[in-house]
Amino acid sequence: MDSFIIKGDICWSKSKTELNTVRDGYLICEDGVCAGVFRYLPEKYAMLPMLDYSDKLVLPGMVDLHIHAPQYAFRGLGMDLELLDWLKTYTFPEEAKYAEREYAEKAYSIFVSRMIKSATTRAVIFATVHKDATILLMDKMEASGLISYVGKVNMDRDAPDDLREPGAEASAYDTFGWLNHIFGSYTRTKPILTPRFLPSCSETLLNELHEVQRAYEIPIQSHLSENPGEVELVRRLFPKTAFYAQGYEQFGLFGNSGKTVMAHCVYCTPEETELIRKNGVYVAHCPSSNMNLASGIAPVRKYLDMGIHVGLGSDVAAGESESVFRVIANAVQVSKLYWRMADDSCRPLCFEEAFWLATRGGGEFFGKAGSFDPGYEFDAVVLDDRDLFIYNDLTVEQRVQRDVYLGADIDRICAKFARGTRII
Amino acid sequence: MDSFIIKGDICWSKSKTELNTVRDGYLICEDGVCAGVFRYLPEKYAMLPMLDYSDKLVLPGMVDLHIHAPQYAFRGLGMDLELLDWLKTYTFPEEAKYAEREYAEKAYSIFVSRMIKSATTRAVIFATVHKDATILLMDKMEASGLISYVGKVNMDRDAPDDLREPGAEASAYDTFGWLNHIFGSYTRTKPILTPRFLPSCSETLLNELHEVQRAYEIPIQSHLSENPGEVELVRRLFPKTAFYAQGYEQFGLFGNSGKTVMAHCVYCTPEETELIRKNGVYVAHCPSSNMNLASGIAPVRKYLDMGIHVGLGSDVAAGESESVFRVIANAVQVSKLYWRMADDSCRPLCFEEAFWLATRGGGEFFGKAGSFDPGYEFDAVVLDDRDLFIYNDLTVEQRVQRDVYLGADIDRICAKFARGTRII
Repeated sequence: MDSFIIKGDICWSKSKTELNTVRDGYLICEDGVCAGVFRYLPEKYAMLPMLDYSDKLVLPGMVDLHIHAPQYAFRGLGMDLELLDWLKTYTFPEEAKYAEREYAEKAYSIFVSRMIKSATTRAVIFATVHKDATILLMDKMEASGLISYVGKVNMDRDAPDDLREPGAEASAYDTFGWLNHIFGSYTRTKPILTPRFLPSCSETLLNELHEVQRAYEIPIQSHLSENPGEVELVRRLFPKTAFYAQGYEQFGLFGNSGKTVMAHCVYCTPEETELIRKNGVYVAHCPSSNMNLASGIAPVRKYLDMGIHVGLGSDVAAGESESVFRVIANAVQVSKLYWRMADDSCRPLCFEEAFWLATRGGGEFFGKAGSFDPGYEFDAVVLDDRDLFIYNDLTVEQRVQRDVYLGADIDRICAKFARGTRII
Repeated sequence: MDSFIIKGDICWSKSKTELNTVRDGYLICEDGVCAGVFRYLPEKYAMLPMLDYSDKLVLPGMVDLHIHAPQYAFRGLGMDLELLDWLKTYTFPEEAKYAEREYAEKAYSIFVSRMIKSATTRAVIFATVHKDATILLMDKMEASGLISYVGKVNMDRDAPDDLREPGAEASAYDTFGWLNHIFGSYTRTKPILTPRFLPSCSETLLNELHEVQRAYEIPIQSHLSENPGEVELVRRLFPKTAFYAQGYEQFGLFGNSGKTVMAHCVYCTPEETELIRKNGVYVAHCPSSNMNLASGIAPVRKYLDMGIHVGLGSDVAAGESESVFRVIANAVQVSKLYWRMADDSCRPLCFEEAFWLATRGGGEFFGKAGSFDPGYEFDAVVLDDRDLFIYNDLTVEQRVQRDVYLGADIDRICAKFARGTRII
């Protein structure tokens, strides 16, 4: 069933700063594409099957532009270190376990089952360096009905022996092998080139990845200017590059070949920021993670004012939860602290803007996603939030705001669709 | 039944920076008081009834040092303004509704039912200016079994007509009436003197409240140095006071007569901070609220280093949720941003410290509360968190950390006790 009607209290972004809401409205899915929202059911859709979610909230599916699937196992733990020590102490040892198929099978099953239960319909995902485990994850994501980009990680230096790939050629070889293996296998799950971050990649590897990118024309994801210690490390490892992003760009890995998303962007220099804009690179803003690893706060207002593409990332497990609702609330909260403590020319984000980032903003990376405007791919979540507004009449917009602030996504979702396919 | 055994996975603070954990341990309640935690059940307790919560997590009840009961109705809404405008636009109109008994009855019923479901066993609560509604709230809190201080608010200026009390004498008169009415009525619910904040109180009113305090010897709660706009307003309204807290202290309302708790303390001057310390005033640190109203971040590390009493406050509805778990996580998170962005001599709070603040730190305001050490009043919550650690073995301490970061209190509580009495 790819054509149907959902009846309920519907909300989506009208613009970056405004929400559209229709109480008791009709949301039409036609062949997996949104045909619009109506106060009264148009005659021409009267024959479609109707899913009656009266009094429930209907939102576009959330888009998570940055999440590490293998780190789900230690979410909410190990929040006592900064990025580089956190990677060595918690992350790398956990990721090394995915060499074993049995562990990957168990852990990724749970990750995918939780992604299904969340409000997220689309995600851009880091796997590990392991080809087989990455394919396993992609198989599971495809079976879930969710829509994703999944990347086998590349790292040939500055990592423990059991996780570091044995040289740039071996890393590239495995990446080709991975891409060949999955070619044509999926309709909802796409590969994305994933150099972990500059410190994990030799120049030889970056050059090899450039070849991979040219051969397969796939998009690219990585991390950029997250933490002062990391930025300093990049300066030492790449003495010839003027700034962090240049290390990617000179190998065609910064929006100058394929579509690119960079997580964090907390400490971008003006030149770097300008390159992000010029090359149309997406910023995955990860406020929860940036608090937990004591990284700081990204100047999202500046990025939006410059017309840079921005979406939100949970960044599990540096972010404690896969709930994009929580990330929306954190995005507003830290923008207020940034305005108060760092730069009072950066007006805080309003709720509507953060909601837009989590839907349309990130959705653009996937094409036409994150909206109920006609022509958008049909991603929707239905929330039963009636217990949260029992004694005062709230508007649909107020309910959205409360649900998001309270993180009332997980456990309240009673239906979910991606590209018109029912997931829950 | 005030004497019993709880079997489960038990965790509480050993010190400010360490947790005690006992897997499969025995926690003994004797006549409402904790008799200790044991790995093996001592012979002398063998005859007590046992509540078997094997595999479940047993923690001290959380202490919320600052929450506004009447604001529960709009939690998670109206996060677009700073303190003074937020009060005028959202808070005062809502609080005015509590003049009507019917509204108060409905709203406070829900507030108390949600407090029951939370991990909180003790709270210091603001009601409204209305005597009758405050008594209603106290009746309901007493019936719940929770332990609380509840204050009828005093405010005779700078508020809308339908909320401002008609003069200092009327305010004091109603406060006497309230205290006389409830005298001897409760065992778990105590009154607390509650001048809203300096801008709402004339000097005459503060003087009257001083008389009330002397007559009834009750503790005091209010707000202090939360927001730059508020601090500036106090400077204009009280030109003769050298700093905000002095406005309370000169009327015996700042730890110099009764036990006092002040919410926020984000912008305390050095003199003010020293007065807090000298007078033994408690600081209710409200990190969620301070983000939402763009107030800033309180320098909690400094307060702890000075030996100042600190606990945590949800500050609903400026704080979006009554979950003290969320406040613990936010306290750690904002302390990292404070270290990064404001003062790198202020080491971030570790998880164990924030947990201590939420239990022992705030518990001290109530006497011996917030711990499972022998002699403490028996407050405990039992969480069924088994769905959160299904595929890796976590230590008890790791489970506590994950549950707190994920805000997995509400909806996971399967038993709760305050002073030995079962609440859930």
